[in-house]
Amino acid sequence: MTTVRRLQENDWQRVWQFMEPVIRVGQTYPFAMDMTSDEAHAMWIEATECAYVAEDAAGQIVGSYYIKPNQPTLGAHVANCGYLVAEDARGRGVATVMGKHSLTEAVKLGYRAMQFNLVVATNEASLRVWKKLGFDLVGTLPGAFNHKDLGYVDACVFYKVLV
Amino acid sequence: MTTVRRLQENDWQRVWQFMEPVIRVGQTYPFAMDMTSDEAHAMWIEATECAYVAEDAAGQIVGSYYIKPNQPTLGAHVANCGYLVAEDARGRGVATVMGKHSLTEAVKLGYRAMQFNLVVATNEASLRVWKKLGFDLVGTLPGAFNHKDLGYVDACVFYKVLV
Repeated sequence: MTTVRRLQENDWQRVWQFMEPVIRVGQTYPFAMDMTSDEAHAMWIEATECAYVAEDAAGQIVGSYYIKPNQPTLGAHVANCGYLVAEDARGRGVATVMGKHSLTEAVKLGYRAMQFNLVVATNEASLRVWKKLGFDLVGTLPGAFNHKDLGYVDACVFYKVLV
Repeated sequence: MTTVRRLQENDWQRVWQFMEPVIRVGQTYPFAMDMTSDEAHAMWIEATECAYVAEDAAGQIVGSYYIKPNQPTLGAHVANCGYLVAEDARGRGVATVMGKHSLTEAVKLGYRAMQFNLVVATNEASLRVWKKLGFDLVGTLPGAFNHKDLGYVDACVFYKVLV
């Protein structure tokens, strides 16, 4: 049983623990691979509207996501989120729980739609979750992500109307 | 005959002269409608890789565009540009000249593709130019732009592979 709550400042050390390896391998997000904990904190918490953590039944934090406007001002009614699941907690539906939570939360925060700009096409687990949660594949961007192991791979734009 | 050159600091006053009304009407870009000249300067020049101006045969500046990475790091090989044409110079092909120039310039700067994230679907002149210059319509984002006069309108994602 996975539950989701707002991230608190003293959760950061644990979140960084599973975020750091994801950043270092450069396979899923366009983050600087040498990003520090402080820089990641600024990106995930300070530059967003809200950040959350997912906990398993034992109270261990196993994932985190943020929500923020995808564009400024006249595009700010569309939400954007980023999600991370701890490597040892994968395959247990944590991303799906966070995805559903974020859709509810986005509506509460007044957003009218949600958009993902750069879902790496080789990240099959991610594609599966967004399709399952009713996102539309807007289209594919050829070679838009420089995957550290595979080189230039396609990325997908996903969108879901909320209202 | 329209020519394009790098923007110089003393061009800003003229660029702001035709940029300001475009920002104030809120019909084409997700910029804050109350943006000041200094904020626009930061967005158009300081936060980008390069900015340019288009001049007519008389040496009058009639347009401007910027080029920058569309995403950080592992997505930074895809360029993004924003273009503006002075209202009294529209219908004379200035956007097409700047568009072609930007494609050449993007290749010179090492970009592998160019992407526009939020082309407002009611901006027909813009859609026409990007199709003419060989951009692919990746897809349409329902209601993604809050047009000041028309309310929520669709926006388009365009992409062109350069290499």
